[in-house]
This record gives sequence, structure tokens and C-alpha cells, in this order.
Amino acid sequence: MARRPDILKRETLFAGRKVCLQVHRVRDSGGRETTREVVLHGGSVAVVAEPEPGKILLERVWRYAVEGSLLEIPAGTLEAGEDPADCAVRELAEETGYRAGRVEPMLTIYTSPGFLTERITIYLATDLEPGQPAREAGEEIENLLVPVDEALAMIADGRIDDGKTVCGLLYRYGRTPPAGGKEGV
Amino acid sequence: MARRPDILKRETLFAGRKVCLQVHRVRDSGGRETTREVVLHGGSVAVVAEPEPGKILLERVWRYAVEGSLLEIPAGTLEAGEDPADCAVRELAEETGYRAGRVEPMLTIYTSPGFLTERITIYLATDLEPGQPAREAGEEIENLLVPVDEALAMIADGRIDDGKTVCGLLYRYGRTPPAGGKEGV
Repeated sequence: MARRPDILKRETLFAGRKVCLQVHRVRDSGGRETTREVVLHGGSVAVVAEPEPGKILLERVWRYAVEGSLLEIPAGTLEAGEDPADCAVRELAEETGYRAGRVEPMLTIYTSPGFLTERITIYLATDLEPGQPAREAGEEIENLLVPVDEALAMIADGRIDDGKTVCGLLYRYGRTPPAGGKEGV
Repeated sequence: MARRPDILKRETLFAGRKVCLQVHRVRDSGGRETTREVVLHGGSVAVVAEPEPGKILLERVWRYAVEGSLLEIPAGTLEAGEDPADCAVRELAEETGYRAGRVEPMLTIYTSPGFLTERITIYLATDLEPGQPAREAGEEIENLLVPVDEALAMIADGRIDDGKTVCGLLYRYGRTPPAGGKEGV
């Protein structure tokens, strides 16, 4: 099947600090003209880090867009030209203080590929040395050290509902058996 | 910690079919004025469905925004006022033909809460009866029936890199042990 439509016109309606918004006029393989809304994003990293055996770093972060405080693994946005592994080390250190001797990519996900270009590479950080966080002004982050089993239970009961965090923790640690036998399919 | 900043000004710069873009001028708890880019989205659903024991429905979907063809679980956008469970049944039937006798929510994720309001509720669909898909014009979707173990291997090697799909499959089925012993931490 032919997939890549012809782009007839590409308009940038907004170019901001985090995202750009474009609207494309395209003609698909069937000759039909249509409009595509595309949100451009430079990409992100996230980090699963276990500074003590069986305990992982989580952050409670106030997220303005969703008007709530979410439990997330440490994460951040790539700076222009920045190597994702360097970004993972930098963000982990800035947000939690921990210096990672080693980071390795576990998986890369598209967050909402229907309209958003953002990809997040999720790293596993090891050889961790504690230190002082260096937060940016206005970053309101509470650091937590949470047992893996509790974090998995938080995914199961919805206390953790950030996509990259669910992906990173389930990928690294699997999941706890469902409670209450609801899923006996 | 005080978290909810005062909104000084809220501007809608684009109101499209899939997303709206707003820029907010806010004053945070420390008195600092700053700008927030917010992409508004009405929410989505996704569906894990196993029409044959040990095999799940996947779709190969051309995603214009990321210029690639992704392997995803069936999914779609909520219509205004639509019940998410009804949406899950509708999208599964439209895209794959399968009629679900029962859907139950497994988990809900924010896709990119730093700037995007989108939440996806991921359902488990059961009591499946095959039927004819009813695709929308321009939807280029290839349906696949994939063994669970192969789908988990596709997450591990990156062939599946859609966030909601990774969340739904790892949540439902756990994960395969890592290949090659790379993660002996």
C-alpha cells in the first residue's frame, strides 16, 4: 500500500520553546486532499535508576498541562544536538543528584505518533553515586525512593499513570500479578 | 509546596481537528512570570484483544507525523461526549471487524504530561466475534494476528515502539526475559 502522501503546503502556525505546530495540506494515495496537524517536539529521555537494591527513584512532579501532580521516573527534554545518553546522565544528576557511571538504552517509544513527533528513549542507569541535585528555577520536584514492588502496585492501581514511567518500569521489572483475580481470561 | 500557578493570560493560537494549542502566561509560587505551552487533546482509547488463545491483534499503521509505519494495538480518539468503553468497542470493530462482548479498563496513561493533556485508557477486550472492518476513508491499516511471545520480542528489539502499545502489552502479558544477558544488574 502506498502510504506517504504528497505534501501540498506546510504552514508553521506556532514555534515555541517546547513545541512547534504545523498544519500540512496533503494529497493521499487515493487522490484525496486532507489536512494534517503535526506537533513537532525535539525528543526526550527518561531514566530508570535503582540506587539501592530493589528501590527505584521516582519524582512527584507538578504537571501544569494536566493540572496534577504525577509520579514519574526522572526525565527531561533533549537540548539541540545533545546526545541522548548525555542528556540522561545530566537530567538524572540535575533532578536527583545521582551521578550515573553507566547508562544504557532500554527502549524508545513514540508518545503519541498520530500527531506528535516526540520520541522518548528510556535508559537504565547504573553505578550510581549520590550527590546534590541542581534544579532549574521553578522546578518543583519531590524525590522519592520507592520499592520496586510498590511502584508496580502503583501502576496496577493507577497512582502511576505517566506513560513513559509505565513503559520503563514494566519493561525493566515486569508486573505484579493482578489483584483480585479480575483477569482470569 | 505550592504548585498551581496563577494564570495571568490564556491565548488559544490554534483550534484544529485533533489538537488545540494554547499559550498561558503564569506566575508561579515564587512570583516568577513564565510561559506555558499547552496542547489540548480530547483523549483516546486503545484495546488489547486476543481473538485466539495466545495471539493478539496488532495493526500496522502509517503515521504521518513520524513518517513511519508503526505496529500498534487498535486505538482511536474519543468523540465529543463519547463513553471511553463505547469508543473502545467501536474502534475495535471499525478497525479490525471484531465485536467485543466485554471490555474492561486496564490502565490509563498520560502520553506526554509536560505539555499535552492527552490521556489514553487501555482496555482489555474479551468475548470477541469476528466480522467485517468498516474503515474510514484514508485509513491505511493492515491487521495482524501476532503471538504474544513474538509481540513481546518485538518490544524488546524495538520493532514495536508505540508507547500505548508497549504499556498495554507489558501490563497484560509481562515481558520476556532479556536476550543475551545484557541486564545482569
